[in-house]
Amino acid sequence: MQLSCSVPKFEFDVITMGHGSGGLLTHRLLQSGVFDILKNDMLDQQHDGAVFELSGKLAFTTDSYVIHPVFFKGGNIGELAVNGTVNDLAMCGAIPRYLSLSFILEEGLKTTTLGKIIQSIKLAADKAEVQIVTGDTKVVEQGKGDKIFINTSGIGTLHPQAQIHHNRIASEDAIIISNSIANHGIAIMSQREGLEFETDIVSDTRPLNHIVNKLLDDFGADIKFLRDATRGGVASVLNEVAEITGLGIEIEQAVLPVEPQVEGACEMLGFDPLYVANEGVFIVVVKKEIAEKVVSVLQNDQATKKASLIGFVNSQTPKKVLLKSKIGGRRVVNYLTGEQLPRIC
Amino acid sequence: MQLSCSVPKFEFDVITMGHGSGGLLTHRLLQSGVFDILKNDMLDQQHDGAVFELSGKLAFTTDSYVIHPVFFKGGNIGELAVNGTVNDLAMCGAIPRYLSLSFILEEGLKTTTLGKIIQSIKLAADKAEVQIVTGDTKVVEQGKGDKIFINTSGIGTLHPQAQIHHNRIASEDAIIISNSIANHGIAIMSQREGLEFETDIVSDTRPLNHIVNKLLDDFGADIKFLRDATRGGVASVLNEVAEITGLGIEIEQAVLPVEPQVEGACEMLGFDPLYVANEGVFIVVVKKEIAEKVVSVLQNDQATKKASLIGFVNSQTPKKVLLKSKIGGRRVVNYLTGEQLPRIC
Repeated sequence: MQLSCSVPKFEFDVITMGHGSGGLLTHRLLQSGVFDILKNDMLDQQHDGAVFELSGKLAFTTDSYVIHPVFFKGGNIGELAVNGTVNDLAMCGAIPRYLSLSFILEEGLKTTTLGKIIQSIKLAADKAEVQIVTGDTKVVEQGKGDKIFINTSGIGTLHPQAQIHHNRIASEDAIIISNSIANHGIAIMSQREGLEFETDIVSDTRPLNHIVNKLLDDFGADIKFLRDATRGGVASVLNEVAEITGLGIEIEQAVLPVEPQVEGACEMLGFDPLYVANEGVFIVVVKKEIAEKVVSVLQNDQATKKASLIGFVNSQTPKKVLLKSKIGGRRVVNYLTGEQLPRIC
Repeated sequence: MQLSCSVPKFEFDVITMGHGSGGLLTHRLLQSGVFDILKNDMLDQQHDGAVFELSGKLAFTTDSYVIHPVFFKGGNIGELAVNGTVNDLAMCGAIPRYLSLSFILEEGLKTTTLGKIIQSIKLAADKAEVQIVTGDTKVVEQGKGDKIFINTSGIGTLHPQAQIHHNRIASEDAIIISNSIANHGIAIMSQREGLEFETDIVSDTRPLNHIVNKLLDDFGADIKFLRDATRGGVASVLNEVAEITGLGIEIEQAVLPVEPQVEGACEMLGFDPLYVANEGVFIVVVKKEIAEKVVSVLQNDQATKKASLIGFVNSQTPKKVLLKSKIGGRRVVNYLTGEQLPRIC
C-alpha cells in the first residue's frame, strides 16, 4: 500500500491567540490547512460533531499526547497520536473506525511544524484505515503550553470473535510479548537536552490493529487479554494484570526480546528495559496450548517479528511479578516508581 | 433531582512528574482520587478503553478545555468540560451517553484543586445523565502547561426524530436564540488579571441535552438545525450558517436577549455581545410556522427562559449576516476578527 499526502500550506506563518478565537482566524486556519488535508464526508459537515451509523459492541478510548520533543527518531507527535489511540482500540479487541482530533497549540508555533504534523496524522490514519471525523483547536499563550499537545479519542467495533477481558486470565496461561522492547523510550531519550547521544535506535510507533485483527481471526476467544506496553513499560502492564486478577506472573529474562543496541543504551543510562516505554509492543495472554502458534503468527508479520513467549501466569505468587534472571535467580519486578522518562508519549 | 458527591482526598498534596509516568504514582493517583469518585462498571475495568453496546445512528464529538481562570463565577473547568461536550452532542440531535476524560496536568498543581474539579465533573455528568467510561492522565513540567487542561470526547445516540443538518435550512426559516447572551464571556472577563471588576454576572455553563431532547420530542424533524454559540459568539455561528448554506440571515437587535448588567459591562469594555462567548446558549433554525411554539416551549424551561425569535433566513443577501439596529439601520455582522477573549473555554 503506497500512501501519500501533501504538506498543508497555511496562509499564516505562526499561530497567534486569534487562531483559537472560534472566529475568522480559527475558520481560516482550518480551511487553509486542516479540512482540505483530512477531508472526508463527515469532517466536511463542520458541525459540532460527526454522525454515523454503527451497531453492536463498540470500544471507546482517549489519550492526550504531550511527547517532547515533538519530532523524534522514527516519527512525530502526529502519527503517535493516531497510532496510540488506534492501538488502544485494538487492545480492546476492536477494529478502529473513527477518531477525533483535538489540538492545544502554543502561541508562536510555526505553521510549517503544524503542517508536517497534520501530514503525518493523515498518513497514519490512512495506514491504520481510520477516519478523522471531528476535531477542535485551542491556542494558549506562549509559556502556557509546549508547541503542541494532541488529544485523539477513538471508536471501534468489536471483532466478532473478541472476548478480551482480564477476568478470563487463568493460572498457567502463557504471556507473549509481540516484539523487542524499549526502542521508543530510548529513541526519545537519545534526543533529550543534556542526554543527546548518537544512536540508530528509532521509535517503534506503528498501528497494531491489523496484526491484532489477524490474531482474532485466527484464534478468536483463545486470545484472552491484550495490552500495549506504553508508559511504565512491560513491568507496569504485568503488575496491573497481577493486581487486577490476583494471580502471579513469572517471566524469563533470557527470552525477553531486546535489541543489542537498545540493551547497550539501557546499560549506559542505568535503565531496565522492562520499565522503558514502547509504542508498538503489546502483551498477549493466551492458553498455553496455543502459545507457540500465536508466536509463530506474530513472527510472520513485520511489526511483530521478534515476538516471544516470555512467561506464564501462576497461582503460587498472588499479585506478584517475578523475573527469572539469566543466571537463574528470581527477583520481584515492581511497578515503575518515580518518573524515569517524562513526557514519553 | 438532588445530586451529591464528596471531594476526593488524594494521598499526595501536589502533582509531580511521576504522576504522569504510567507507573506506580499514576496508579496510586487514580486509585486514591479518581476511580472511586467517577466509579462505574466500565471505568472499573481500567482497560485501555471502554466496551459497550450501542446501535443505530451515533454522534461523536471532542473538545479540549483550556479556560483561564480554572475556577470562575458560576463554575469551573470540570463542569465546563462535561457540559460543553454534552452540548455538542445535543446540537447534533443526539442523546449524550458516554464521555471520555483526559487530563493534562501541570507539575505543581495542588491536588485539592484537582479534587474540586473532579467533584464538579462527577456532579455535571450525573446532572447530564452521562457516564465517564474511559480516561487518561498526563503531566507536563511547570511552565509547559497551565494548571490543568481537560479533553472530553463524547458519544451519543441520535434522537429517533432528529434530522439536524445545515442542508435543511431554507429561505424564510426562523432563527431562535435559546437564552440571553454574553454571560459566560463577561463573567470570565471580569476575573481576568488587569480587568477585574465587580459584577454578579455568572457563567451560563449548563447541560442543554434535556431541553434539546424535549424540542425533538415535541417538534421532531421540524427542528432543522442546532448550534451552540460558544467561542466566537452568536455572530460566528450565524456566519458559519450563512457561509455553508449560501443563504443570508437578518436578525433584529431589539429582540436580542441581553441582560442589562451584561449589556452595561459590554459597553464598558467595548464588546459587542454578539461576539462574546456563551456556554449554555444555542441557535435553533425552524420553519417559521412553528417558531412561536418553539419559543414558548423554550421559555417554559429554566435553562432557556429568555428564548427569543431573533430573525429569519433569506435568499436576498447570500452568505451575509445583517443586523437591523434598534434605530432601524442595517449593518453587516462579520465573523469575530482577532482574539477578543482568549481562553474562554
